[in-house]
Amino acid sequence: MLEKVDLTKKLDKESYKEQIEGLQTHLGALQRECKELGIPIMIVFEGLPAAGKGFQMGKLIQALDPRGFEVHNIGYETKDEARHPFLWRFWKRTPAKGMVAIYDGSWYHKVSREYFDGYVKGKKVEEAYEELRLFEKELTVDGTLIVKFFLYIDKEEQRRRMNKLLSKESTRFRVNKNDKKRHIKFDRYRNICEKMLQKTDTEYAPWEVIPAMDKRYTTVKIYKTVIAYMEQKIDAVKRASQTQIYQGKKSDYVVPVLNVLGEADLTLAYTREDYKKYLKVLQKKIEKLHGELYHRRIPLVIGFEGWDAGGKGGAIKRLTEHMDPRGYVVHPTASPNDIEKAHHYLWRFWNDMPKDGHVTIFDRTWYGRVMVERIEGYCSDKEWQRAYDEINHMENSLVNNGAIVLKFWMQIDKEEQERRFNERMNNPEKQYKITDEDWRNREKWNQYEEAVNEMIVKTSKKNAPWIIVEGNNKYYARIKVLETVIAAIEKRLS
Amino acid sequence: MLEKVDLTKKLDKESYKEQIEGLQTHLGALQRECKELGIPIMIVFEGLPAAGKGFQMGKLIQALDPRGFEVHNIGYETKDEARHPFLWRFWKRTPAKGMVAIYDGSWYHKVSREYFDGYVKGKKVEEAYEELRLFEKELTVDGTLIVKFFLYIDKEEQRRRMNKLLSKESTRFRVNKNDKKRHIKFDRYRNICEKMLQKTDTEYAPWEVIPAMDKRYTTVKIYKTVIAYMEQKIDAVKRASQTQIYQGKKSDYVVPVLNVLGEADLTLAYTREDYKKYLKVLQKKIEKLHGELYHRRIPLVIGFEGWDAGGKGGAIKRLTEHMDPRGYVVHPTASPNDIEKAHHYLWRFWNDMPKDGHVTIFDRTWYGRVMVERIEGYCSDKEWQRAYDEINHMENSLVNNGAIVLKFWMQIDKEEQERRFNERMNNPEKQYKITDEDWRNREKWNQYEEAVNEMIVKTSKKNAPWIIVEGNNKYYARIKVLETVIAAIEKRLS
Repeated sequence: MLEKVDLTKKLDKESYKEQIEGLQTHLGALQRECKELGIPIMIVFEGLPAAGKGFQMGKLIQALDPRGFEVHNIGYETKDEARHPFLWRFWKRTPAKGMVAIYDGSWYHKVSREYFDGYVKGKKVEEAYEELRLFEKELTVDGTLIVKFFLYIDKEEQRRRMNKLLSKESTRFRVNKNDKKRHIKFDRYRNICEKMLQKTDTEYAPWEVIPAMDKRYTTVKIYKTVIAYMEQKIDAVKRASQTQIYQGKKSDYVVPVLNVLGEADLTLAYTREDYKKYLKVLQKKIEKLHGELYHRRIPLVIGFEGWDAGGKGGAIKRLTEHMDPRGYVVHPTASPNDIEKAHHYLWRFWNDMPKDGHVTIFDRTWYGRVMVERIEGYCSDKEWQRAYDEINHMENSLVNNGAIVLKFWMQIDKEEQERRFNERMNNPEKQYKITDEDWRNREKWNQYEEAVNEMIVKTSKKNAPWIIVEGNNKYYARIKVLETVIAAIEKRLS
Repeated sequence: MLEKVDLTKKLDKESYKEQIEGLQTHLGALQRECKELGIPIMIVFEGLPAAGKGFQMGKLIQALDPRGFEVHNIGYETKDEARHPFLWRFWKRTPAKGMVAIYDGSWYHKVSREYFDGYVKGKKVEEAYEELRLFEKELTVDGTLIVKFFLYIDKEEQRRRMNKLLSKESTRFRVNKNDKKRHIKFDRYRNICEKMLQKTDTEYAPWEVIPAMDKRYTTVKIYKTVIAYMEQKIDAVKRASQTQIYQGKKSDYVVPVLNVLGEADLTLAYTREDYKKYLKVLQKKIEKLHGELYHRRIPLVIGFEGWDAGGKGGAIKRLTEHMDPRGYVVHPTASPNDIEKAHHYLWRFWNDMPKDGHVTIFDRTWYGRVMVERIEGYCSDKEWQRAYDEINHMENSLVNNGAIVLKFWMQIDKEEQERRFNERMNNPEKQYKITDEDWRNREKWNQYEEAVNEMIVKTSKKNAPWIIVEGNNKYYARIKVLETVIAAIEKRLS
C-alpha cells in the first residue's frame, strides 16, 4: 500500500488558508451531529517516526469541542498493563457513544514497534493481526466509526526532521533511541508497516495512508478524510433508523434446541456431615492453590450464572471463604449504569478482568446479553445472535493471556426455586433477597431454559467450559464448584 | 497507644462459634442500612508485618454483600502514581455513597513503611501527617465513616508466624525482604507506628488498636468495632435528617464584600494587527516551554472560570493551538454525572489531575462549588462555606507535588455579555453555544458577582493565584492569558 503513495503532494499557503477555516467549521458541526446520534468515533494516528503525528493531531483537535473528545497516548505497556490481556488497555479506552477518541499510537503498537523490536514474533504476530481485526470488527458492528491514518514520509525527509529536533536542546528528547533505530533500519520498519497495513485493511476499518511530506497538505487531507467518513456514517445511521420502521422486529432465526439443562441429575446430594468434612479439606486446598496461582502469576476468571435462588451467592462464599482477600475480587453484575450503557456491552467486563496471578469472580456475567437482554428485548436479535462469537472471542483473549476460565451454571428445578422463594419471603433476614422481579422472571422459565441451552452449546469450549452444577442440594453444589475449581488449577499447575 | 494494648486477650472456640454468626448477620443488615442512607464507609487495615491483616479482612468481608464493597491493596506507588500528587491515588479510591471500601494498607503507607525505609524524612513526615489528617477530615465532614484498625502483635509472635510462612514453599513468597527488615528492627518500626498513631488519632477518625495475638479474638473484636461505628453513624445520620426539618436553611454567615471584579479595567484592548503579531510570537514560545515542562517533569494545572460568553473557549484554543496534544488535555466541567454525584465533589477533579510533565486545563473547575452550587442551592451553606479551605488544601497538595497552578477569571461587563449572547443567537453556526440557561444565569449577575468576589479573595494564593483577565476585548484577553502562563513557566524554569 505504501508504494502507491504520491509523496510529491503539496499545498501552498494561500489554498490552505482558503480551505482550513471552512473545514474546521464543518468538522465541528459534524462532531455535534455525531454526538446527537450517539456515534462513538475512534481516530487512529499511526505512521513512521517524525512523520508528524503529534502536530497533525494538534491541528485536528482544534476543530473539536473539548467536551467531546479525548486523546490517548499509546506507548509500551506499563507493568500493570503487561499483566493483563493484550487488548485490555484498548477496550478500557474505547469511547462512549457520541465521543471521539484519538489515539496517538494504538493497538497497532504490537504489530509495528514491538514486532520491530523483536518482542513479538512468529505465530504471535499472525495471532495479533487476527485479534486486531476482530477487535475492530466488534466495535464497528456495534456502531463505532473507526478512522485509521498512517502518515508516510521518505527516509530523507525523516533524517531532515530528526536532525532538526536533535539540533535544539529543547526538542532533543523528542527523538528517542527507538526512533533512531527505526530510522537506521528504515526499510525494515517500512516493510513491517506495509505488512501490518495489508493484514488489517478491512472493509469495516480500512487504512488511510497519507503522504506527510508537506504539513499543510497533510492537515487538509486529514480533515477532508475525517469529514468524509463522518458524513458517510451519519448518513448510514440515519438510513438505518428509517429502515427499522418498515422492517419487522423478530428475525426468523431458528434455535437448535438441545436440552443440556434437562440432563442434570438433580437428585445428587450430600449429607450435612459429609459436606462439612469435604468443605474443610477443599477450602484448605483452595487456600494453598490460590497462593500458588499468585506465585506463578496465573489469572483465574470464574463466571457464575444460574436460576434466581440457584445458590450462586452461597457457592461464591464457600469458594472464597479461605482465600486471601488481596488476591481475589467478586464483581456482582447489576443492570448497567449510564456510563456502561454508553459503551459496548463487553466494555465493563473487560475493565474488570484480573491481572496475572489474580482471581476475578463474576456474580452474573457478560452472558446477560444472550439471556436477559435477549428475552426482555434490551438488544436486537442480530445483536444477541452475534454475541456468541464476540463472547467466545473475548474468552479466547483471556485464555491466550494465560488465564484459566470457568463458567458455572447453577441448575435447580422449578419446584425447588418456588420453595426457596417462599423461604426467603418468610424469613425477615432474607426478605431483602427476593423481589417482584424474581417472580416475574420465574414466569419466563421456559424462555430462559431455551436461551440457556443454546448459550451453553454455543459457548462451552475446551479452554473455557461451562460446568452445569446440580444445585437442588446446596451441599452438593458447593462441593462440586470447589472441586471443579481445584481440579482446573491443579491441571494447570501440573 | 501501643503500650496500653493487652496482648493476652483470647477467645475460645466455643465462644467464637456462639458469637460469629450473629455478628455476621448483624453486620450484613447494617451494611444494607448504610447503603440505603448513602453512607460511604472506609475501613483501613494497618498493622505490623504478619499481624494477620489479610486473614482478618477475609473474615470481615464474608459478612458483606459483594455488590457493596471493594478491596484496595496499597503498596509502594507505581511509576504512574509516583508522578502524581501523593493523595491522588487515594482520592481516586474513595468509595461512592453507600459503598464500603476496605484498604489493605492505606495512605499511612507513607508515614509507616516509607518512613521506615528512609524514603520520607524530616519535615516531609510532619507535612504528611497534616495532609492525612486533612484528607480524613474532609471526607468525614462530607459524611464518610472512617474506621481505622491497627493490628498489633509482639516480636516473638511475629517471628513465629514468619518462620511458619517461610517454612513452606507455597507461602514463602508472602514474607518479603521489607517484612524481614521490619521484623529485625522491630522496636524501630514499632516506634514509627506509635508516632503515626498518635499524630493521626483524631476525633473524626480515631485509631482502633487491636491486639492480634489470637485470631478468634481479633475477628470478633473487629466485627464488634465495625458494628459499633456503623450503628453510631446511622444514628447520627438519622438524627441529622430529623433536625434539618426544624432548622432554617440559611445561615447568617456574613460575606465580606470586596469588589475585586469591579477594579478590572475593561477598556484595555489590542488591535487585530497587534494581536496577530503578538499571538504568533507567544504561541511559538509556549510551544517551546511546553516541551521544557515535559522534559523537566513539571505539572501545570490551569483553571478557567468566567462569565458565560466571557471568552474561555477562545482563550483555551489560542493557548493550546501550538502545544503538542500528547502533553496536554482540556477537561470541560459539566454538571456531575451519577457516579460523580455519589462521591465527594472534589473526587472527579482529583481523578483528572495531571502527572508530572503534563498540562491539564479545566474549562470550569472545582470552584463551581462556591458559585453555581452556592447560588442554586445545590449544596448547603455549611458545605460551600467550608469549600474554600478544602479547595485551598487541594491546590496546596498540587503545589507540594511541584505543580504550577494558575486560575483565570474571564471578566466582561453585563453589556458586553448581552452583545455576545445576541451575536450567538443570530449566527447559525454559533447558536448551539447559547441556551436558555445562559439567559437565566444572567439574571443572577449580582449574586454571582458577590460570590466570585468572595471566592477570589479567599482562594488567591501566592502559589495558586487568581488572575482576573480583562475580557471585553477578546484580543487583549487571549494575549494576557498566554503572557501569564508563559511568565509563570519561565519563573519556575529559571
